Parts: sequence; structure tokens; C-alpha cells
Amino acid sequence: MEIRSKIWIEKNGEPVFSKGRCILLKAIDEHGSITGAAREMGISYRKAWGYLKAMESRLGFSLVSTRVGGGRGGGARLTEEARTMLEKFEDLETGMKELVDRRFAEIFTRRDFF
Amino acid sequence: MEIRSKIWIEKNGEPVFSKGRCILLKAIDEHGSITGAAREMGISYRKAWGYLKAMESRLGFSLVSTRVGGGRGGGARLTEEARTMLEKFEDLETGMKELVDRRFAEIFTRRDFF
Repeated sequence: MEIRSKIWIEKNGEPVFSKGRCILLKAIDEHGSITGAAREMGISYRKAWGYLKAMESRLGFSLVSTRVGGGRGGGARLTEEARTMLEKFEDLETGMKELVDRRFAEIFTRRDFF
Repeated sequence: MEIRSKIWIEKNGEPVFSKGRCILLKAIDEHGSITGAAREMGISYRKAWGYLKAMESRLGFSLVSTRVGGGRGGGARLTEEARTMLEKFEDLETGMKELVDRRFAEIFTRRDFF
């Protein structure tokens, strides 16, 4: 048996940050564009853009800035706030995974269930 | 912002225990029957029974024993293994929730994002 865990952040009951949203931001960072990120994730540009705008609107700050001549054809880069958010979320996720794995091993001993 | 978290247990990549499955077992315990539990949860008897059998088959032990004259019309009670599993899972869940809440408060300080 193995323990699985998941965390996400909500604001007023709406999701604002999660593993999937992290992957989207990291893909934008890597490709330098929303189009490239969407293609890598196998979703439409429209869908990726929609996720971004919903996150930004709920968080109350910008996650991505587009360059002049930007938009669909142009480039996009993460804001400092997006980088901070990503880093903190991943810290939290890693820390939690370690804690949960340790507690699972303590609580569910081999003697009980294997 | 608030942190949300979820844990579940898998065996060979298949879910064997989760919050929803806990609720089903506790409803069976409370009502003394699968029928009563299914009704409370707003799912069919067939569906509740299916969840139970899948869990039992993956775990390799019985979670519910039915009384003589049992089956759909009769009574059902949790096995000792089911009670142990429930208790351990809830311990793990509570412990994790406390840890995640604490870490979230440490990592995401008010100064950063509010």
C-alpha cells in the first residue's frame, strides 16, 4: 500500500493554485509563450489562457506579462509574483509529501496490513 | 487564501481507501446495513456494494460481515480490520491537515500575498 496526497490553494472557495496550474506556469516559463505551453500540455491556447486569467483574477495579481508585439503570436514571461508563488507551493508540496510518507509508515505498520 | 489537502491510499496504483470510502464505511456502521448507508449517501445499493467489494478485493480482507438472513434485506457490520483501517486513516488525515495548515501559515505569510 502507498499513500497519495494532493494539496491546492483556494480563495473564497475557488481553486487558485494547484499542481496542474504549477505545470502550466512552468511550461510558460520554459517555452516563453502561452501557445508553446498549451501545445506541450495538449490543451487549447484558449483553455490555457482561461486558466491563467481565472487564477490572476482570483489572486488579484498578474502571473504572466506579455511582451510588446505579444498576444497569441508573441512571448510571455512569468512575473516575480508568479515565481514566488510557484516556489512556495512546491516547497509546501515537497514538505507535505515527506511528512505524509513518514506518518503513513508510522501509523500503518507492516504487521497490521501486509 | 486557504490550503486544501486530500490523502488516499492506493495498492498497485488502484485506490483502496479515501475520505469517501471512509464515509461509506461509517454510514454502514451507523445504519447497520449497506442499504441504509447507500440511501444516506444518495447512491444505489449496487454502487455501494460495488465500492465495498472493490476495496475488499484490493485490500485482501473483508470490511463488512453480513448477518444470517443478510444480503440486501439483512444487516451488515464492520469487521475489526475495517475499524482499524478507518481509525488509522482518520488519524493520518487529521495529523496531515494540522501539519499542512501550519506549514502553509509559515510559508505563505500575510506580507507576501494579502
